[in-house]
Amino acid sequence: MQCDLLRGVPNRKVIIDDHFWNNYIGVVDTVVLPFMWELINDRVEGAEKSWCIHNLKVAAGDIRGEHRGAVFQDTDAAKWLEAVAFSLQKKADPRLEALADETIDLIGRAQCEDGYLDTYFIITGTERWSNLMEGHELYTAGHMIEAAVAYYEATGKRKFLDIVSRFADCIDRAFGPEEGKIRGYAGHPEIELALVKLYRATGEERYLKLARFFLNERGAQPNIFDTQDNRKCGKYIFPEFRDFDLDYMQADKPLAEQTEAEGHAVRAGYLYSGMADVAAETGDERMFAQCEILWKDMTERKMYITGSIGSAAYGERMTGAYDLPNDTNYSESCASISLAMFGNRMFRATRDGKYMDIVEKALYNTVLAGIALDGKHYFYVNPLAVDPETAEHNPTMSHVKTTRQQWFGVACCPPNIARTLASMSQYMYAQSEDCLYVNLYIQNEAKICLGDTRFRLRLEADYPNTGKIRAVIAGLKAENEEFALAFRIPGSPAAHISYCLNGQKKEGTTEKGFLILRRSWKNRDTVELELDNSFHFVYANPRVGADTGKTALMRGPWVYCLEEADNGKHLAAVFADTSSEISEVQVEGLPAGARGARFEGCRLKIEENAPLYFDKHPETEKVTLTAVPYCLWNNRGKGEMEVWMNEA
Amino acid sequence: MQCDLLRGVPNRKVIIDDHFWNNYIGVVDTVVLPFMWELINDRVEGAEKSWCIHNLKVAAGDIRGEHRGAVFQDTDAAKWLEAVAFSLQKKADPRLEALADETIDLIGRAQCEDGYLDTYFIITGTERWSNLMEGHELYTAGHMIEAAVAYYEATGKRKFLDIVSRFADCIDRAFGPEEGKIRGYAGHPEIELALVKLYRATGEERYLKLARFFLNERGAQPNIFDTQDNRKCGKYIFPEFRDFDLDYMQADKPLAEQTEAEGHAVRAGYLYSGMADVAAETGDERMFAQCEILWKDMTERKMYITGSIGSAAYGERMTGAYDLPNDTNYSESCASISLAMFGNRMFRATRDGKYMDIVEKALYNTVLAGIALDGKHYFYVNPLAVDPETAEHNPTMSHVKTTRQQWFGVACCPPNIARTLASMSQYMYAQSEDCLYVNLYIQNEAKICLGDTRFRLRLEADYPNTGKIRAVIAGLKAENEEFALAFRIPGSPAAHISYCLNGQKKEGTTEKGFLILRRSWKNRDTVELELDNSFHFVYANPRVGADTGKTALMRGPWVYCLEEADNGKHLAAVFADTSSEISEVQVEGLPAGARGARFEGCRLKIEENAPLYFDKHPETEKVTLTAVPYCLWNNRGKGEMEVWMNEA
Repeated sequence: MQCDLLRGVPNRKVIIDDHFWNNYIGVVDTVVLPFMWELINDRVEGAEKSWCIHNLKVAAGDIRGEHRGAVFQDTDAAKWLEAVAFSLQKKADPRLEALADETIDLIGRAQCEDGYLDTYFIITGTERWSNLMEGHELYTAGHMIEAAVAYYEATGKRKFLDIVSRFADCIDRAFGPEEGKIRGYAGHPEIELALVKLYRATGEERYLKLARFFLNERGAQPNIFDTQDNRKCGKYIFPEFRDFDLDYMQADKPLAEQTEAEGHAVRAGYLYSGMADVAAETGDERMFAQCEILWKDMTERKMYITGSIGSAAYGERMTGAYDLPNDTNYSESCASISLAMFGNRMFRATRDGKYMDIVEKALYNTVLAGIALDGKHYFYVNPLAVDPETAEHNPTMSHVKTTRQQWFGVACCPPNIARTLASMSQYMYAQSEDCLYVNLYIQNEAKICLGDTRFRLRLEADYPNTGKIRAVIAGLKAENEEFALAFRIPGSPAAHISYCLNGQKKEGTTEKGFLILRRSWKNRDTVELELDNSFHFVYANPRVGADTGKTALMRGPWVYCLEEADNGKHLAAVFADTSSEISEVQVEGLPAGARGARFEGCRLKIEENAPLYFDKHPETEKVTLTAVPYCLWNNRGKGEMEVWMNEA
Repeated sequence: MQCDLLRGVPNRKVIIDDHFWNNYIGVVDTVVLPFMWELINDRVEGAEKSWCIHNLKVAAGDIRGEHRGAVFQDTDAAKWLEAVAFSLQKKADPRLEALADETIDLIGRAQCEDGYLDTYFIITGTERWSNLMEGHELYTAGHMIEAAVAYYEATGKRKFLDIVSRFADCIDRAFGPEEGKIRGYAGHPEIELALVKLYRATGEERYLKLARFFLNERGAQPNIFDTQDNRKCGKYIFPEFRDFDLDYMQADKPLAEQTEAEGHAVRAGYLYSGMADVAAETGDERMFAQCEILWKDMTERKMYITGSIGSAAYGERMTGAYDLPNDTNYSESCASISLAMFGNRMFRATRDGKYMDIVEKALYNTVLAGIALDGKHYFYVNPLAVDPETAEHNPTMSHVKTTRQQWFGVACCPPNIARTLASMSQYMYAQSEDCLYVNLYIQNEAKICLGDTRFRLRLEADYPNTGKIRAVIAGLKAENEEFALAFRIPGSPAAHISYCLNGQKKEGTTEKGFLILRRSWKNRDTVELELDNSFHFVYANPRVGADTGKTALMRGPWVYCLEEADNGKHLAAVFADTSSEISEVQVEGLPAGARGARFEGCRLKIEENAPLYFDKHPETEKVTLTAVPYCLWNNRGKGEMEVWMNEA
């Protein structure tokens, strides 16, 4: 945290036009947001009911009824509104905006006079803040705040922002170190990072102070989760919480003493994001150093190659170091989003490309795997090996779905993916006063404003299908304007690199993973880069017991996988020949901008009536294998999938 | 089922004196039985309470109190009594017999006037037979009956046999196809095989008929487990039963239609054992054919190489075919006992050695792994790979204990192992009117009675440490008596084989896995065999995804494993060189009669600060590996263990 905090480029300024990402981003406005609107209104046949709008209407007094669904169901509306806001930032849509305004009005009517807002507690009459471990009120508040800030930035309308500010004020009156206030915090973090957003949007320092209080109070003894009545009386909203230790909620000790990333993966990612925010805003070097320790533990000992975290389904949690089973893991889509959020914050505070290397992996692999190409089906859980035959008959894998599902009763992932896709610009760019950081190579055109300098950047890319990146400057008013363009060179903290400036070959050196070109720029100035996009086999650290003797195929950030559609059944019996040539191939049924990889290998012969165990090595036969990007698996029907292949 | 049923050799007639098995059998009388007596009386500090004797005393009116512990807790006493009975069959022990008599008196006082006997239902006043799915009354009855038959055979005392006969009569009055009787059966099978034992001991055909009724009624529609009130009212003794399907209890369809071995592994093994018994006793060819189908499915598609079954912890159950994960499985000790019971019955009905090949695997590997050499610590769950570091931090493996435990609240395994060890003769020998089947090569001296012919068989063996087997006849009254000795030749259904008779080399042919020597025998006649005891690497069927690219080491029935004690940490990073010589070695800390195996291999270098994923193949180094019999793992402290090794 040696530098000023980088800011994002406003979402409205970045128009994505990428061969591959269009498959996903294109459906957000046209399919995902209208579909989710129907879903949260419980109008999609065959999908699990959300009850979200229902609950808001009951709390508002519009209809009579009971609270239905999970305790945090209000967040379905919040995340939908946030995704709508990001969409409206880029393209006006009066019908969508009208639906959003209608929902915001409804939320306003549901809010209590003193600002409190949570339909579960309002409708059921359960005492506010009485069950911080499970109540999710502060989590829900956080999502409402995030949505309101985005909606304010999208439309300039203050109504939603005022609603959540009143709610934040209500929280601020209830919590704090002062006499008579609750010295507590959220079982599920999220409020912390949201309060920093609200502070940035409103300038109200109380919100930053409250976020900091929540972080500093976390893990204090005696532990609030133990001392609140609900636990003492054994009254649980989620009976499974009975068995969860405090480390599940990252609350077993003060954050300053937590050196291992542990517990529920999404909670961890949101918490650490809030820590990074507060540390950066308050200049708290110690807290930031803690973030670096947790990041390192999370990404260097507990992360899948697909940028996912959460090795165990029970508790949706991280486990021990290097414990990365490929078929029983959880690897929740939301956890990868939280990892991207955390990494992006670490990058903005340090300008170090190593964080974006991981963010890119999470986004290109697990986050995209979470959503089907049709925009209507989702994976919550993202294992790296699935055999439907096994997963559907072994209760150890009851959490693993063998096809994407339409909606979930606990529907955190679908709207979380939608809001992420609708705001990809936050990951693609960052900026200081005089430098634009180009982090991701997704083709787009961006309107940039560095201090007084305004220009357009046209980024041409088909990465990682090709390594060619072309950036063209346009729209500069003056002839020569000095500023810097920083291009992330993946996985290259300090390396010599060639590039072309206006057709002329130049040499440069990366600093913390970036090639930084500081000069006087003119219109039509063109930078061309050639990034490494070779197919290559990778290996896991030998401490990862699940992957010894195995290899995976990568190209750029993409992890590839074998699918039954291309390679038949029994993928575990396949051995990849890592010495073979790997060629790019078109694979039928893959969307635009996605290529397959073909290479040689062998497989153990499957013989009918063979015994279960035998003395001779099973016979093998040569095979040609086809791998496709992991994020695309299961878009061509149900079947086996495998990332880590036996090595021949 | 083409032949007359073989009988066992009475347990009292077989005196085991084996280098290796003495380690276990020797502690049953001296350690296990006295220790278990203390345990079921809740007098062992630090061990989970059994409450078993407590409950019997409450039901008897000896003390006041509530029923404590699980619904089937009475079986702790039953299995202890059965093990005591087997022990007394071999060696008088007045003190132990007095304790047993005292316990039987107590059981008698706890019994209701009409013969009903189950402390949970008696003490709590819960309506008898009202929850057949979970109530375990018939399961408990089964264990009481087995114990009583064994005690009668040991002591000739009828009291316990009369108690269980009255209980069986009570059950017979309650259940049956007749008007007014319950058309139901046990959620947990066991009563079926027990009733056949009671029929054999008493000659009362009603018991056989009742066993047959239970089997034929099983899976009838509408299903009794669905129609009984407890399920309709949602009142569960075990809340987790709410989620279990009827196939968990092998009750989803009639047994005649069940072609896949499925559900809870122990229930399956006991049920199929009962089917084999009833089929053999009643000459029901169709039912026996069904047993063969289920045996084949269980042992050729769902069995671990260690002779264990149950791939999933949730439901302690079998899963899909070839789904044999090595670290998350259940592989309960009791399930291997039930497999041995089932296989032994199939053998006795068919005289086919292939069944005993599997029985031997189960006994030599998983059943023995269930008990520590000290006789006081037990494994319930027997995975084939354990990394304590991982298992203790990943809730997916919360069922896996990384050291043997002293006692369990649900303590089926410890007394089940004890009764098995105390009655090993049932597996070692079987006999027809004129043929003695020698199944297992555990050194012993047996007094045999074939029709009118009596002799002693001295079996000398140190198998599988050596392949040399020597059988010497003694004690024949006449000079030449014709009968047959059948020696099982493991894994050799039909093979030419050499042997020595009185020092002279002879050639023979196996029939269904046995070398049958029919002749006129004289005293001092000596048969010498040389069984294959070579160390050899084995492979799993390529459909077993968990084992592709891996190999295991075997010698005779023994599966070997790598332990951290001999090979250091990170066993998953080890690769066995299957082309290397394998030599026998003495390993420090192993008990008498156990040898290690040494062979070459390599391991991936573990480097500090290595990244989690990298592009180059990890470096390897050559290592010499030491494997020990799987059954002995974890007798030298906590550490990693692995059966299936990567193949170099």
